[in-house]
Amino acid sequence: MNNWLGMFPGSPSAEAASTEEMARSELLQVFPDLKFNLHINPVLTDSFSIEETEGNIINISGGNSGILYGAYFHILNHFSGTKISYPYSSSPMYPLRMINCWDNADGEVERGYSGRSLFFDGGRLNYDCDRLRHLGRLLSSVGINVLCINNVNVHDPAQLLLEDYLPDLEKLAALFRPFGIRLMLSVDFSQPMRHSIPTADPLEPAVQNWWKETADRVYRYVPDLAGFLVKADSEGRPGPFSYGRNHADGANLLARALKPHGGVLVWRCFVYNCRQDWRDTSVDRPKAAYEHYSWLDGSFDDNVILQIKHGPFDFQVREPLSPLLLGMSSTNLALELQLAQEYTGHQIDIYTMMPLWKEIFEELPANNIMSMAAVSNLGNDENFTGHPFAAVNLFGYGLFSWNPSLSPETITRLWVRLTYSLPETDITRLAELLLSSRRTYEKYTAPLGLNWMVTPHTHYGPNPSGYEYDLWGTYHKADRCAVGIDRTVSGTNYLSQYPEHLQRKYGDPSSCPDLYKLFFHRLPYDYILSDGRTLIQRIYDDHFEGYQEVCLMEETLSSIDFPEPDASVIRKRIVLQKANAREWRDVINTFFHRLSGIPDKQGRKIYD
Amino acid sequence: MNNWLGMFPGSPSAEAASTEEMARSELLQVFPDLKFNLHINPVLTDSFSIEETEGNIINISGGNSGILYGAYFHILNHFSGTKISYPYSSSPMYPLRMINCWDNADGEVERGYSGRSLFFDGGRLNYDCDRLRHLGRLLSSVGINVLCINNVNVHDPAQLLLEDYLPDLEKLAALFRPFGIRLMLSVDFSQPMRHSIPTADPLEPAVQNWWKETADRVYRYVPDLAGFLVKADSEGRPGPFSYGRNHADGANLLARALKPHGGVLVWRCFVYNCRQDWRDTSVDRPKAAYEHYSWLDGSFDDNVILQIKHGPFDFQVREPLSPLLLGMSSTNLALELQLAQEYTGHQIDIYTMMPLWKEIFEELPANNIMSMAAVSNLGNDENFTGHPFAAVNLFGYGLFSWNPSLSPETITRLWVRLTYSLPETDITRLAELLLSSRRTYEKYTAPLGLNWMVTPHTHYGPNPSGYEYDLWGTYHKADRCAVGIDRTVSGTNYLSQYPEHLQRKYGDPSSCPDLYKLFFHRLPYDYILSDGRTLIQRIYDDHFEGYQEVCLMEETLSSIDFPEPDASVIRKRIVLQKANAREWRDVINTFFHRLSGIPDKQGRKIYD
Repeated sequence: MNNWLGMFPGSPSAEAASTEEMARSELLQVFPDLKFNLHINPVLTDSFSIEETEGNIINISGGNSGILYGAYFHILNHFSGTKISYPYSSSPMYPLRMINCWDNADGEVERGYSGRSLFFDGGRLNYDCDRLRHLGRLLSSVGINVLCINNVNVHDPAQLLLEDYLPDLEKLAALFRPFGIRLMLSVDFSQPMRHSIPTADPLEPAVQNWWKETADRVYRYVPDLAGFLVKADSEGRPGPFSYGRNHADGANLLARALKPHGGVLVWRCFVYNCRQDWRDTSVDRPKAAYEHYSWLDGSFDDNVILQIKHGPFDFQVREPLSPLLLGMSSTNLALELQLAQEYTGHQIDIYTMMPLWKEIFEELPANNIMSMAAVSNLGNDENFTGHPFAAVNLFGYGLFSWNPSLSPETITRLWVRLTYSLPETDITRLAELLLSSRRTYEKYTAPLGLNWMVTPHTHYGPNPSGYEYDLWGTYHKADRCAVGIDRTVSGTNYLSQYPEHLQRKYGDPSSCPDLYKLFFHRLPYDYILSDGRTLIQRIYDDHFEGYQEVCLMEETLSSIDFPEPDASVIRKRIVLQKANAREWRDVINTFFHRLSGIPDKQGRKIYD
Repeated sequence: MNNWLGMFPGSPSAEAASTEEMARSELLQVFPDLKFNLHINPVLTDSFSIEETEGNIINISGGNSGILYGAYFHILNHFSGTKISYPYSSSPMYPLRMINCWDNADGEVERGYSGRSLFFDGGRLNYDCDRLRHLGRLLSSVGINVLCINNVNVHDPAQLLLEDYLPDLEKLAALFRPFGIRLMLSVDFSQPMRHSIPTADPLEPAVQNWWKETADRVYRYVPDLAGFLVKADSEGRPGPFSYGRNHADGANLLARALKPHGGVLVWRCFVYNCRQDWRDTSVDRPKAAYEHYSWLDGSFDDNVILQIKHGPFDFQVREPLSPLLLGMSSTNLALELQLAQEYTGHQIDIYTMMPLWKEIFEELPANNIMSMAAVSNLGNDENFTGHPFAAVNLFGYGLFSWNPSLSPETITRLWVRLTYSLPETDITRLAELLLSSRRTYEKYTAPLGLNWMVTPHTHYGPNPSGYEYDLWGTYHKADRCAVGIDRTVSGTNYLSQYPEHLQRKYGDPSSCPDLYKLFFHRLPYDYILSDGRTLIQRIYDDHFEGYQEVCLMEETLSSIDFPEPDASVIRKRIVLQKANAREWRDVINTFFHRLSGIPDKQGRKIYD
């Protein structure tokens, strides 16, 4: 297995019982002769500083986790190729840097593209300790400190994590503790009803009491549990709406049970009508989260965190920032990203996410949020992430959550350099390929912010009308003249949820950036974009270019000498990606050509 | 349970060991005081005659099965309301009247809409004897005499029917034998390879020998087995093509193993490229069966029967007759129908098939075929067929296979009268509703022979482009100007597979019946149909009318006093059908409106 920690000769220590012991063990494993001191000051928590004294002694100071992060920093910095000189100190921007695993108790991973669960099998916790210590090292080395191990869709019998499985959970928490990683659990809002309580109403004392007792019990086994994560009233999950309560009632219920133990309650804001009638144009799905939550700003307890997807839909290739992230100034917020490539190529197609995240923070003031979360791309594949390049997203997520002002280029080049021993020119070529991969994917899939022209259910491959007459609220309404939904004041007025400067930016088709055009506007095919091309010609061009770029990616990759087993995996997957890009190119071009009747100006082949 | 045999007070005899004993028992169960004689002449096989002597003695003469059919005829005739007077004699048009069950060993029924398997559960034969005797009575009462119990897609461990499960199969055959019903088995062409034979090549002596020994063994347990049924080289099933052999080689291999035992080998002709590239216009799926088989006419052994679906696609609502049924004069043919409502409403929507079958025989000379087969609509639902009205298709299939000159009206009225005790006006209204139900379904689903605008996989509900860019060869290529595939000489030339009179009938858009227009021709939306309407207006009209007709059906049904449990089932399902019809209406109309931009002349609501 090749990853950014290839400098380690062996497994992380199974004996280290604290972050300090782990830091010591990890440093000595890579540098057996290193002279160093660790100075812990718990108040510093995750922060660390490193200095090098005369006699080449390395002094690492920091909080309990900080010294371990310092140790990993020292190791990675040594192999980075662009070594940062000491003294150096660092603090994370966000105290919680979370990974959400969508793992089911049966071992399946929902939207998982790198094998089965690392934590579960056969309906219970069931894992390889050595494997998980490697995972602990991977996560900790990039500063990830919270791991939610089970799916937000809590299917039977995952509820038992709060009950019968607590002794097993205690052991798992102990395994990750020396890595500075605290566990979190997804919980089922209706769980009290499994215990002879006839309701899960958050205002019902019996329910409040059940959650309090449950939290007390859980914390007896796992005293440093980070908290609970909840998906409620969403895509069939139970929630407060069943009892005529709002989501502050629901979140505060659980938060109060966690409060005495210092736990946080993370409440996902992915709430929308997933039984929409496509005929009903009065509903526009992107408006849902803001409508459900913005009026509740200030109603949430101080240990509640609302976890908000970066865009108003669902992890599409091109979405504007969710307006809810700009509209909750009196509430703790977490930004939710998705490392799992659900809509972005299933870890078959190469898709590097840092450019997307950078765009998010161009609109999102970094201190609007207090925490980061990402849906995991992990599984029990040998390399943890399916495609070896998918690891760059995990690596990047960690670094970016620590310091969102890092550039995608810096992160990507660092990952390449740490992962592969390649000539300088190949490092540059590979980093450039990775950095451009998202734009390439966007070109051959979703044109100009249109989204959702994807195969239903699997979410891989093109199906331009797959969701067009479905219940999910994801329509493009392409007809023979025009395409897209008008989300300005003359249409659904989704735009009104934004601050004024963004309303100005997106509201007028002529000022709206081309890549967001069809997210906000319904436009005729002959609409002239800012670069002078017509909308339809731009669709054709992007799709032809996207495929061509994948062909060039294949050439580039075939000329780089990757080690095995990565070389084989990369070779096989780029062939699949090329077939996928070709299918997207032809299906989307044909779809719009049949509708518009407008030929490609360059006369390239569009199938009838 | 209400069905056409409601006059029976109890279960069929578990003691009757022969058709004669069964005939006697069944007659006495309905008419305890009946005086009758049974005269068997085995040469007469299925034929029977009935006369009534002085003293009201009923004499039934016939072959072994014939006397049982005579007995059932006498019973049904008595309750028919339009009693046929004696003497009366009858012979079936076709000696084999087969039902193909698509039941898997695990108890699932592929494309089954009336519950789980009646024969299998948990990987083996597992059934309720009393239930199966009721089934035997149902089938035998309408002359069905061959029952293929397992799916043509032979999934593990159904192969064991030829091996470990033979003792159980022997018992099942004994159960059905007194009903004149012989079992048939679907077999896996590659089964020899499960027995250390490295190939399934039909010209390989070891393979021939394995099949011979296998047939010998099977017939030791079931001496009257009707034979084997095979789906080969189709949708992933193994077949002769793997070994560079043709389908005569494959069919004759098995036929020769069956020959000494008097068994037939039924070989399905559902062979086509199911991995087609939608871009490749040189391939046209309806041409496949004729291309694969017609040149082999005369190469099949005399105990081979080629089983050919009625249309060249796959049980769509509107297909022309398969040209293969007209092009194999030196080969034994079976016509394959589908009672399971795969594409025709899942036994939720009402869909009576006799009008379709009548149309088939308008083009198909009755003696072109020597046998009838139908995919089963049976399952372990209380009423066997899910919707109580789906029973009319089973009933009708039996009568129609006996005598294809019977009119749909006669069959339908007889079924209604036998099934429900209703006032004469309601009998007429229900029969009319059933007889018009297929046309209604056609109106709100597939316009003018277009087909396949259906939700992939489930095949219920609309999805106009669901298969448009897929691998299945089922495209409509609708664009802003026109829709359909030109299958004439100027297009794919599928038409050339037909005899001249049908080429003339279908070849010219002006003479081609409107309902087949889009099967054979690509036409612009403003094309004028034979009734003076434009193509697009006709699409709109049909879809609005189809929904309206379902609303009227609901009214009619609510005014008829059905007995329970049928009343509840009928009431629930018509609501679902109405929702389905509405969805089809709006999705198809919107789809074509977006493409064509042409408004409805009557100004009815078409959603944007």
